[in-house]
Amino acid sequence: MAAADCVLKLGGSALTHKGRRESARDGALRSAAGLVRELCAAGAGRCIVVHGAGSFGHFQAKAHGLASGSPTNSESLRQGLCLTRISVTKLNHMVTEQLVMCGVPAVGISPFGAWRTAGRKITQAGIAAIRDSLEAGYIPVLHGDCVLDSEQHCSILSGDTIIEVLSREFSPKRVVFLTDVDGIYDRPPDTPGATLVDSIAVNADGSIDPPVLTSALPHDVTGGLALKLQTAINIVTQSNGSIPVLICKLESEVAKRACLTGELRTGEGTKLFLRQTEETTSVIASGWAG
Amino acid sequence: MAAADCVLKLGGSALTHKGRRESARDGALRSAAGLVRELCAAGAGRCIVVHGAGSFGHFQAKAHGLASGSPTNSESLRQGLCLTRISVTKLNHMVTEQLVMCGVPAVGISPFGAWRTAGRKITQAGIAAIRDSLEAGYIPVLHGDCVLDSEQHCSILSGDTIIEVLSREFSPKRVVFLTDVDGIYDRPPDTPGATLVDSIAVNADGSIDPPVLTSALPHDVTGGLALKLQTAINIVTQSNGSIPVLICKLESEVAKRACLTGELRTGEGTKLFLRQTEETTSVIASGWAG
Repeated sequence: MAAADCVLKLGGSALTHKGRRESARDGALRSAAGLVRELCAAGAGRCIVVHGAGSFGHFQAKAHGLASGSPTNSESLRQGLCLTRISVTKLNHMVTEQLVMCGVPAVGISPFGAWRTAGRKITQAGIAAIRDSLEAGYIPVLHGDCVLDSEQHCSILSGDTIIEVLSREFSPKRVVFLTDVDGIYDRPPDTPGATLVDSIAVNADGSIDPPVLTSALPHDVTGGLALKLQTAINIVTQSNGSIPVLICKLESEVAKRACLTGELRTGEGTKLFLRQTEETTSVIASGWAG
Repeated sequence: MAAADCVLKLGGSALTHKGRRESARDGALRSAAGLVRELCAAGAGRCIVVHGAGSFGHFQAKAHGLASGSPTNSESLRQGLCLTRISVTKLNHMVTEQLVMCGVPAVGISPFGAWRTAGRKITQAGIAAIRDSLEAGYIPVLHGDCVLDSEQHCSILSGDTIIEVLSREFSPKRVVFLTDVDGIYDRPPDTPGATLVDSIAVNADGSIDPPVLTSALPHDVTGGLALKLQTAINIVTQSNGSIPVLICKLESEVAKRACLTGELRTGEGTKLFLRQTEETTSVIASGWAG
């Protein structure tokens, strides 16, 4: 399996106006496409892009209870799944089209069909299509989707969960979450005094320093940031620290350097890395330096 | 493997204005969706829909020579493949959305990734996703697409070729091609005196009566009708006659009955079936009755 340079997550909050149904942020789409084009030009074009749904699919999925599914009420779930997929694939088409218009060899690959779950746990991941596309010189563009679930008819497969699987399969040099804020804050970022956390040390058991971050993340109503952070932690621990995870702002000058080099300077974003047992103290210190 | 009620091919000529780039015929989209909804209501909803590209993708694919591909010139092919896929998936989204808006549990499934070719011959068919969707009560909606080819980088996988594979895998009761004309004519349908051929007898060796149909099909500039006819012949012979193929007009009252019962009356369309050795003469006679 060929390794990827980078797995990029384009956050749904960054790409869309979250409160406005099916409303994409054109500037964010252009920024994302321009960024990937620069990565290609710099010879780091072995990327996989995964984007969230934001205000696409969210309303339909919620209205039909797709996340919890049901072993019996499949009629309503089917309708919900179809409506949700129409919406999320619309955004996937917009993202992919913008990339292609910028000269990026992007191909949209929708998880439905190739990915499956059982009780919300992934039982089948559509890796072959992604691997083949990468090896042929393309940049696969996946998205959070609804998929078939053998226990509850269907489930939501989030972009973050996809990222975690891709990290295992493609051993990227780094995973970069591109969001609508600069990174992870010590409290909701719109709270006075909120401070960007420059780095988070992940222990081998999955606990993190500073630990406060695991609990209080009330500023994300969809639970997305909690899942994002857990995903980031899982990637760092499962790769035994070989895959650092960076979180920074999509529409920024920082994003390109983060993707190309993995470098984030103080105040530019949040980096998660595995704590080496010998240097526990210094890592914690740097975690609060921002 | 569960059998399907019907495999439906929505012709690109029927769905789009062929000469106008990326121009869908809204009436045709609505007709197709209304038809599938009626099939579902009649308890015959185990359908697979495959549509052509028409004026979506055609121009981009031609400009970049995607059909013949190349073992070396992959940069231009990649660009062409991406542009073509943006276009054909746009139409797939429109078709699927129209179906879902009509209450049909339709899911778009794009061949790229799951289907592959070598020297234009299919080496991998994405059957599992279609089977799983059918079994979960969905109607998969596939389309002609560009796919990766291990010898010439990429190739065009036509909707007709997909149909042939699906017929083998899902043993439908019938395959129905829905087009912009009533069926197959004895000469170009816009020629004075052109006569609709009601039925075509297919011999076990693939030859047909009336035999004139195999050669002169100059009225289809893309070669689509020749391929369509060959596909139809292959389906009839490979299934040993158990799968009849019907060709009729999408926007007609005939289409529903053809899909539900396999019946086409004189002048309503063209039906292909396997010639039984004992009744050769009568089959040929009925072939010219229209």
